[in-house]
Amino acid sequence: MQIMVLRLGHRLPRDERMTTHVCLTARAFGASGAIYSGQKDNSLEGSVERIVGKWGGEFSMEYEGKPIQRIERMKREGWAVVHLTMYGMPLPEKGREIGKKGREIGKKGRVLVVVGAEKVPAEVYSLADFNVAVGSQPHSEIAALAVALDRLQGGKELERGFQSNFAGAEVTLEPSEKGKNIRKAY
Amino acid sequence: MQIMVLRLGHRLPRDERMTTHVCLTARAFGASGAIYSGQKDNSLEGSVERIVGKWGGEFSMEYEGKPIQRIERMKREGWAVVHLTMYGMPLPEKGREIGKKGREIGKKGRVLVVVGAEKVPAEVYSLADFNVAVGSQPHSEIAALAVALDRLQGGKELERGFQSNFAGAEVTLEPSEKGKNIRKAY
Repeated sequence: MQIMVLRLGHRLPRDERMTTHVCLTARAFGASGAIYSGQKDNSLEGSVERIVGKWGGEFSMEYEGKPIQRIERMKREGWAVVHLTMYGMPLPEKGREIGKKGREIGKKGRVLVVVGAEKVPAEVYSLADFNVAVGSQPHSEIAALAVALDRLQGGKELERGFQSNFAGAEVTLEPSEKGKNIRKAY
Repeated sequence: MQIMVLRLGHRLPRDERMTTHVCLTARAFGASGAIYSGQKDNSLEGSVERIVGKWGGEFSMEYEGKPIQRIERMKREGWAVVHLTMYGMPLPEKGREIGKKGREIGKKGRVLVVVGAEKVPAEVYSLADFNVAVGSQPHSEIAALAVALDRLQGGKELERGFQSNFAGAEVTLEPSEKGKNIRKAY
């Protein structure tokens, strides 16, 4: 399954850290890239790119001025669009269907996961193939994204072997019961 | 299983939104309360308490000036202490053991989940019964918390029926395929 994450409505300075965490979560949980809309933020892009350089793997980071048109285009290209919203259907009721739809329409199984910031335009709800709730309570788009990516991939992104996805890293970690076990490539 | 979340090292204004999301994630994912250390923040406490008032259920919110002593005390009281850190052991390798230890030492199964902000004191690594990594990559304490709580509870916090935990709400949501279905109690 190929996963991309679209973060809507980035606002400066309010969302600086939130959007950084959205992008880093996307990367750590196996998405191949993040797209963000709202205000263009070179500092955000730099932060994410520095992490990718240091911690390895491939991860694209891109600004999109017209997110609705981008969602429409990705749908035409065969991406299943999953909008995470607390108003949506419970994730456990939709998880299997999302995976199936991703494979059907995308052949390789391509899923675009959309997360909002403050107010999400109504078009997103109608364009989405699935409006999915990670709990029907207010909490955090970062939490929702992490759990959705975990479920979509059956948890494989948390296993030891998944670290092989982050090739070319300057720094890698060896899991440790107590303390820190860091390896540097240089 | 009873779950409490301890957020270490809250800094103003840098962590305002992050810590709010940590606490709201704790609540939405079934923790019975959050404790935070670092800088005292009345605005944070007010934000969380407003959400609890509007969206229902019981959730305690408390400031702790001496988090290390608090962890020691809770250990003595029978809480299993789980520190989430990217340096720790992969969550899938420890999940079952955590649940078991929580039940053994706490009888009712009590787990204290600790999440850091910038730099976590070394004592936390040695005091923790488990240092657990939600992926061995840098991302977000909010993401780590959400996935850990999801795994510890076997996903039940995302099911429709879990909403009954949030009694006395002014507002509840009915899951919806498209759009928003909001019910107000007044």
